[in-house]
Amino acid sequence: MPDTVQLIPLPGLPLIRPGDDLAELIAAASQKAGLILNNTDIVVVAQKIVSKAEGRFVRLSEVTPSAEALALAAITGKPAEQVEVILWDTAEIVRAQKELLIAQHKLGFVSANAGVDHSNVSDEPGVLLRLPADPDASARAIRRRLAELTGAAPPTLIIDSHGRAWRFGTVGVAIGVSGLAPVQDLRGVADLFGEPLRHTDVGFTDQIAAAASLLMGQAAEGCPVVIVRGLPFTLNEQAKAADALRPKHLDVFR
Amino acid sequence: MPDTVQLIPLPGLPLIRPGDDLAELIAAASQKAGLILNNTDIVVVAQKIVSKAEGRFVRLSEVTPSAEALALAAITGKPAEQVEVILWDTAEIVRAQKELLIAQHKLGFVSANAGVDHSNVSDEPGVLLRLPADPDASARAIRRRLAELTGAAPPTLIIDSHGRAWRFGTVGVAIGVSGLAPVQDLRGVADLFGEPLRHTDVGFTDQIAAAASLLMGQAAEGCPVVIVRGLPFTLNEQAKAADALRPKHLDVFR
Repeated sequence: MPDTVQLIPLPGLPLIRPGDDLAELIAAASQKAGLILNNTDIVVVAQKIVSKAEGRFVRLSEVTPSAEALALAAITGKPAEQVEVILWDTAEIVRAQKELLIAQHKLGFVSANAGVDHSNVSDEPGVLLRLPADPDASARAIRRRLAELTGAAPPTLIIDSHGRAWRFGTVGVAIGVSGLAPVQDLRGVADLFGEPLRHTDVGFTDQIAAAASLLMGQAAEGCPVVIVRGLPFTLNEQAKAADALRPKHLDVFR
Repeated sequence: MPDTVQLIPLPGLPLIRPGDDLAELIAAASQKAGLILNNTDIVVVAQKIVSKAEGRFVRLSEVTPSAEALALAAITGKPAEQVEVILWDTAEIVRAQKELLIAQHKLGFVSANAGVDHSNVSDEPGVLLRLPADPDASARAIRRRLAELTGAAPPTLIIDSHGRAWRFGTVGVAIGVSGLAPVQDLRGVADLFGEPLRHTDVGFTDQIAAAASLLMGQAAEGCPVVIVRGLPFTLNEQAKAADALRPKHLDVFR
């Protein structure tokens, strides 16, 4: 029987600006809240504040749309400048139709608008926010710095919200990981009756992302960091977020 | 800032058999564990024990495969009797290839094998377990009976694990709901800068399912009921699990 797991919203973070040291802000907020981070915690960070700290803003007024962007803008009804920024980060357009642009990001995952966002981005209109250039590296950097500052190196996830095939509603997914394998392979674990389990690969970090996302949900509340406490895990320092991605030849839905 | 959310694995449930009164077992186990259920909790129940309590077992030896089952068995490499049971519950085959059969269940959702399961089912080999006939009704019945037994009527979810397009790893999803709307519409909520949020529909009950699924994960541990405590919600007595399902004409991935 597992123990109770706590999802702890980290209070007291300021609005994040380019150049901010997120780990320092997280460490300070944790200390102020009396939360002593430890190696059995998991730190879950919303992509948006990572992108902001990394200065991934783009002003639409400074973007010149390509011919491809103009064509996709005509199909989707999205501003051509916005489509152009989406294309910067796109490996392949998966679906384009009225009000819908689903792309495979250069980082590998499939999502709406290649993760380019325009809500909660800035008090200046016409500003977009791209995903971190290398979310695994962002997660590693936050974790390493947390270790310097606090002595603890809890596994760290950078998460985003993705729409899904078949079902309405976005759910949290891990786009950057440090210390945790995205997929837990239960193959070989005996089931209740001693039969080997066949239903096997569990989306471990995506489920953690979904859980944390429940608390981050309402943007107006501004809760971009959640500490997950009490969830058992096995450290994996080699894992990367892309381990969760189906290669195209194994994906029957592209 | 939201409060800390607890995911509490309910200890002390016995192996479930056909005819068991799940709500009675949950109420008894809660009481024994000193957990006083209340209206602000959410009770998350693994589909498997609901199906077992409802006696949704099928013996492969008693199944005669149809011509369609034989054809799909040849394509997928799955036993024809198993495919036949899957077809009983299938509205439409979405993909069939070697070792893969993705179907739209008659309940509406798309998943592998129409949810027909063969691990953790029985100590007798060759037994399959179908999903509950009406998971929303199952959730309602458990909740109503919990109210009779405990005086509290916490919203109740029946959850399963589904594979996904694009990403490896199954994640928890709600296939039956009582009291909670699957999709939370954040449209109109102001963002941090007062702009209306456009990234809108959140998969609320699926995220709760994913969170609970983290604790149920390892089947051998036998933790089929998780209490979610401290998560704010708005009661919705009209909602049904199918509210999360994209109708085919709005689904570009079928």
